[in-house]
Order: sequence, then C-alpha cells, then structure tokens
Amino acid sequence: MAVSLWKSLLQTTKSRLFLQRGVSLYNGVHGFEEEAIKKKLQQFGGGSINLSKEDHGIRVLTLNNPKQMNAFTGTMMLELQERVTELENWKDGKGLIIHGAENTFCSGSDLNAVRAMSSSEDGMNMCMFMQSTLTRLKRLPLISVAVVQGKALGGGAEFTTACDFRLMTPGSEIRFVHKQMGLVPGWGGAARLVQIVGGGAALKLLSGALKVDPERAVHLGLAEETLPSSDETRSLEEAQAWLNQYTKAPAEVIQAVKKVVTAGRELQLEAALRAEKDIFGTVWGGPANLQALAQSTKHK
Amino acid sequence: MAVSLWKSLLQTTKSRLFLQRGVSLYNGVHGFEEEAIKKKLQQFGGGSINLSKEDHGIRVLTLNNPKQMNAFTGTMMLELQERVTELENWKDGKGLIIHGAENTFCSGSDLNAVRAMSSSEDGMNMCMFMQSTLTRLKRLPLISVAVVQGKALGGGAEFTTACDFRLMTPGSEIRFVHKQMGLVPGWGGAARLVQIVGGGAALKLLSGALKVDPERAVHLGLAEETLPSSDETRSLEEAQAWLNQYTKAPAEVIQAVKKVVTAGRELQLEAALRAEKDIFGTVWGGPANLQALAQSTKHK
Amino acid sequence: MAVSLWKSLLQTTKSRLFLQRGVSLYNGVHGFEEEAIKKKLQQFGGGSINLSKEDHGIRVLTLNNPKQMNAFTGTMMLELQERVTELENWKDGKGLIIHGAENTFCSGSDLNAVRAMSSSEDGMNMCMFMQSTLTRLKRLPLISVAVVQGKALGGGAEFTTACDFRLMTPGSEIRFVHKQMGLVPGWGGAARLVQIVGGGAALKLLSGALKVDPERAVHLGLAEETLPSSDETRSLEEAQAWLNQYTKAPAEVIQAVKKVVTAGRELQLEAALRAEKDIFGTVWGGPANLQALAQSTKHK
Repeated sequence: MAVSLWKSLLQTTKSRLFLQRGVSLYNGVHGFEEEAIKKKLQQFGGGSINLSKEDHGIRVLTLNNPKQMNAFTGTMMLELQERVTELENWKDGKGLIIHGAENTFCSGSDLNAVRAMSSSEDGMNMCMFMQSTLTRLKRLPLISVAVVQGKALGGGAEFTTACDFRLMTPGSEIRFVHKQMGLVPGWGGAARLVQIVGGGAALKLLSGALKVDPERAVHLGLAEETLPSSDETRSLEEAQAWLNQYTKAPAEVIQAVKKVVTAGRELQLEAALRAEKDIFGTVWGGPANLQALAQSTKHK
Repeated sequence: MAVSLWKSLLQTTKSRLFLQRGVSLYNGVHGFEEEAIKKKLQQFGGGSINLSKEDHGIRVLTLNNPKQMNAFTGTMMLELQERVTELENWKDGKGLIIHGAENTFCSGSDLNAVRAMSSSEDGMNMCMFMQSTLTRLKRLPLISVAVVQGKALGGGAEFTTACDFRLMTPGSEIRFVHKQMGLVPGWGGAARLVQIVGGGAALKLLSGALKVDPERAVHLGLAEETLPSSDETRSLEEAQAWLNQYTKAPAEVIQAVKKVVTAGRELQLEAALRAEKDIFGTVWGGPANLQALAQSTKHK
Repeated sequence: MAVSLWKSLLQTTKSRLFLQRGVSLYNGVHGFEEEAIKKKLQQFGGGSINLSKEDHGIRVLTLNNPKQMNAFTGTMMLELQERVTELENWKDGKGLIIHGAENTFCSGSDLNAVRAMSSSEDGMNMCMFMQSTLTRLKRLPLISVAVVQGKALGGGAEFTTACDFRLMTPGSEIRFVHKQMGLVPGWGGAARLVQIVGGGAALKLLSGALKVDPERAVHLGLAEETLPSSDETRSLEEAQAWLNQYTKAPAEVIQAVKKVVTAGRELQLEAALRAEKDIFGTVWGGPANLQALAQSTKHK
C-alpha cells in the first residue's frame, strides 16, 4: 500500500515532468558536464540557427551553414539550444517548419569540431547536449515539420526525426550514414527512428546506411509525402500550406493536442492516460471550449 | 541486490495487476472523487446501455440514446460501468460486439451534462471515471469489436479505440472532432489512438479533426475492414460472422489469448514476457490442453 | 530530489543491464528453478542445435531434429542455451542465419517432453527457461535472420520472432497454432509478435490460429520478403546475400547498430536515449571511426 502510493506519486511526477519547459534529459548524475561542453562547443564557430518571425502561428527555423551543407558547428549547437528555449517560451505558437539553407537540409556535424572532441567523454557529452536539445524540440507544444530538400545525412537525418513530420522535395534523400563513419547515431536518432518506423526498418536503415528517397520514405512511414516543388521558396510555401491543415484552432487547443500525442508517444498506457486527463483539464471550460459550447447552443 | 529484489516484486505486481478484474485506474491519490462524480452524473439522465444475452460466447452491447445520436448522458456513463463489471464477471465469454442504436455509433457526451460540469475538477473527474471504465473494457478477456455505423464523433470516436477491432459500414465515419469544441480527448482516446495508428497519424487526426471514412480507416490500421451492409441487422450479423473466425476455441483459451496480447500491448517487453509466462501457466495442463494432447496421441 | 537521484540510477542500471551478456530474465524471485528444469529437460533427448563456423562474420544455426519436423526436445532446449552463450562470446560476429534441417523450420515442442511436464510449475519453468534463452538470442549484438522453409508452427512460430528478420521461401508458412492445443504462446512469442505486427494483428493471428503465407507475412510486416528459391541450399545462399547488405562494416560498428536498435525496441524513450548515448561512446573515437575520419580528410 505504501509502495503503491509511492509508485503513484512517482508516475504522476513522471507523466508531468516531460511536459514542462526547459527540462534537461541529463545532469551530473549521468556524468553530464554541461558548462564544460558548452565551452568546448564555443570554440568551433561558423554558421547560425535562424528563427523567423511568427506568421499565422507558424515560425520557420533555418539551419544555416551552406558552405558545409548546413553541418552543425559548435556554435550552431549552442544557438539551437537558445532557439528551442525561445520556442518553449512562445505562448501563441502552433507550428514550426525546419529546413536547411540553400536547398539542402543538413549533413550532420562539422568534422572540425568532431576531430577536436574525439575522446569518449567529449563525444558522450556532445551527445547528451544535442539529445537534450532535440528531445525538448520534439516535445515542443507545436506541430513541427522538417522540409527535407537535398540531403539529410548522419546527424542531419537524426535531426529530422526530432520533428513530428517530414516532407521531402523531389530528388531529396534521408540517409543514416553513421556506419560509414564507424559510428551509430548518438543524438537520439536511433531511438526516435525505432519509434517512427519500427525496429526492423530502423535496423535496416542503420546497418545498411540505406539511401531513403521520398518514395521509400513515404512507404516506410518516415515521410508524409513528396512536395510538388524542389525550389526552396515554393517548397516552403507548400509545407506551410500542408501545415495549415493542422493548425486551424486556437493555440491553446493545438498545443494541448500536441501534448496528448507526446504523452501517448513517450509513456506507457497508464501514465499516458493520466497525462491526457491532466492536459484535458487545461482546456476543459477554457475560452475556446466555452465559445464552442456557446456556438453549439445557438445552432440547436 | 535489495533494490533489484524490490524492483522484481514491483514489476511482478505490476504485470499482474492489470489482468485483475475491477481495478480502477484512479483513486484518491490522483484526486479522483468517484462517489462525488457518480452523484453528479446521476443527475443527467436519458438513454441506456444494453447488454444482450449470450449467443455462442458472444454478447452485444448497445449504446442507446438515439434522440441524441447515442451521446453519453450521465446515467449512461454509470450504466456502462455496471455493464463492464458484468462482463468482467462473465466466466464463459469469448467476444463482444459494441454498436449504437438506430444506425449510428455515438456522438460523444451529452452537451447538457457537459455544460453543467464545466469546472476543471468536474471535467477531470468525469475523464477519470470514463478512462477507468474504458480501460477495464479494453482489458476484458474478450475479443471486442466496435461496429461503426453512421458517425463515431468525439467521445464516440474515443470509445471505438477501447475495442480490439473496428469494423465500419459503407458511408460511416470516425472523427475526433474535439478541437472544434476547443478540446482534446480525455477518455483515453488519444493515448489509445497513438497505440493503434502511431504518433504521426494520431497527431494528424486530432489536430486536423479529419473525417476518417472506412477506406482511410483501413489504410491507417484504424479499422479492419468495411462490412458489406449498411443495414443495422445485417451489419451486426456480418460482424458476428467476422468475430466467429476468432472465437473458435474454449473460452479459457480465447481469454488467455486476449490476456497475452493485452500484456504485450501495455507493458514493456520484460514485464510482458513475465505476464505471458503467468498466463501460459493458467492453460498449460488445463482441460483444453489435455484434450488436445489426447487427440494428438490418437492421430499419431 | 533523493527520489529523482535514485530513479536515475535505477534507469541507468536498467538501460545497461539488457546489453550485458548472459543475463537471465528470471531467477529465484520469480520462482524459476533453473537447475531442476535443466535436469528434467535432460531426460528428453534427440536432435541437436548446430552452429556453423564463421563465414565473413556470419554463422548459421540449424535446428536439427528432422524426424519430428525439428521440434524441440529437452536436450535441444539445453543445447540452444549453450549455442546462445557461444554466440554472446563471439567477438567478431555480425550476422546469424537460423533455419531448420531438411526443408522445414520447426514445429514447436516435442510432445513427449510436453506430456511429461504437464504440471503448471513445470510448464512455467520450461517457459522461463526458453524465454530467457530466446531473449538473449534476440538481444545478441548480431543481425539475425530466420529463414522459414516449410512450416514454423507453435513454438517454431514463436522462435522466428526472436530473430530480427524473417525471410520466407515460396510455399512456406508461419502459424501460431497454440489455441488448437488449448494453449497460448509461452516462449515470449506473443509479447514479441505484438512488438512486430501490433496488437490487433497479433490478436487475429493468435485467436484465429491463422496460416500466414509469405505474401501475408510481408503485408503484415512479419517477414521482409519471399526468397526466390525453395531449395534448401539455394535459399540459404539467398538469405546470406540478403544479410550481406547489412553487415558491410567492422564488427564493432554492426554490433553497436544492433545495440541501439535493441534499446529503442525495448526501452521507453528516455531510457533508450541514455542507452544510445552509452553505445555511441563505445565507437566514438574507436578504430573504425578514426580510420573513417582519416579517409574523409584525404577526400577533402
């Protein structure tokens, strides 16, 4: 009985924790030395992570380092964390489109930074830093879409799995090339890929370093659809139109929808049910609900 | 070692708990005031939940409030709990067909009851009450099928996910309309939908309030197939014939099959394996097994 | 705070435990009497489990008891455990092909052994023994493929789910015939089947004892593809060629790939992320990684 009470409290804590803002996956208990790794990352500059102004509840995040196919430098990793914090504090958000500059998505990590951090400790700290940011990105109460133009390779392929959806332009590819670098995913891409396409398909994509074109991606459930245009501006417009289908409601409602899905995705059934009930409580009797009820009275 | 022992016991308890009868998901620890919410629900009458007599190990549950498209009044929620208790105590059951009266499935909650319980506490208590009943429904050691005629909207759409399978008649639809009411699912429909169709499809269905016709439902894995008939009597006969494919064995065996699948569905692998072993122990050397062994000796 | 620390340690332990070698799922806490069940199994001899020599990082495991359609005798269960231990200690392994002798896969348990162990305790101990072995088999840091020729019935069908992939020859079938014996799976086949094909399909396959031919298996995601040949030698060559697509990398890398997928398959997201980071740490800066980095410098 005491155990069951303690367990209930633990589960309730657990089911709420991941819905909070700014919660890091890692701390000192896991050997994570956040300040030390940030100092190291600071030394490898170049590129930027840009966030557009809001447009109808949607913002666009751009991975911007076109000289290196938008590979992540150290400072881009730091900037990504800042942008995610900004998005967590965005009260009226509904949707997020993520893409790479100049017609390609992202080729993973900048090899200069990689070479300078070749110890196992550095590597794992970098992984913990990126996993933490990408987990917060995936949990954002926004509907997020990666627009894959050109190539999403290695860490870039992993990055796409931190979005709710992937849309691909004609001729683009997603490829987990890690094994060709003697590696496996470390930014959480393997764990998320298994969730999206299942264990068997994930094992094939990773162990075969298979090139996934749009058709195969749609077949596997890795992408939603192939956009009509390859052109950067037009494909972004098409992605925005696609996303608009899913953001036609007050922000509080869209955010709650994303939260119940996050709970269902991450938690075992009983904990997901508890979270769903808590999230329901935040919209029930709220302004959008009361307005809809008032409308339905008029219709009747 | 002490921790590991304690953990083993906890997991064993956990893996068995959900296979017991009448276990509520919620209690006072979660802020659930069952008696208070039952009193409130009692005030909103109308309609009924009917349970047919057994026919070849199969019973039919009817959501019956046709004036309101079988929307759930307060007393229907209370009656559903009673019917589920009755089904939990049904020793010889194999299958359950659930449908709505007069050619439509269910339109969710009766808005009169909804309007009277607009506080967050009332809303969450109603959710806990319904989640608990629907979780017990889904865990019944019976193969359950929702026959969707007409519309399954909002809570009605959620209700279908508490069955093992969904069969749809031509022209019918399942639609999670919650966002149009400024809401998200709260009866567990989001958590269960993610389990059935995956996180991506669930996010689209909920955030787009998409109308799911039989073809789309089958494509998504939300429904098994489209029944040939729209007619109420004939579609129920067709559903019964469909279900008969899966109930040809002694009740103890069908019930054990459902239990191992429930364990696989709700628990992590190790806990599911433990539950499977326990359930195996209930049929191994049992009457159906001994009879089959005797038969196989004759054949050899 | 103390709770959260304790919880972190527990989860870290948990996420690492299943990646170790030779860890049994069961011990005395679960009522598992390993030595006693081994003595009983020893009494039911016949057949063997054979392991080929390595060929390009791949070995072939043969279920060999053709007089009984390769049904598992007691000594075959014991030998399987020994072969799995051998495979766990195989440092340079990448892949494993599992098949049955003389053109059929496996028909489950030898009924002579079954009849002699008809008590619930014996049955559950046998299940715990086989679950433990098959779980270790599935967790091997190797890419494993079952080549299904002829029939995989009952425990034989369960066995195929302990491999990463299933390839089927024309005319072969997988069939969970348990209900016809008054049983349910007990070797973990139900829990793993739910993971592979989902709860709904698993419930149909088990409660209907459905015959799954190659076409249906591919449609359900239970098999990858139908091999061109039915001939034993040629189908094994075809399976080897199929597997070769996924083993072209140093053993340490293939093994790490399998480990991150195992983590994603068995653990909740946060624990899977932690395991992925740990596994990443084993290859980052390792020989294959350093060689690839050196190569990429040359190319630039």
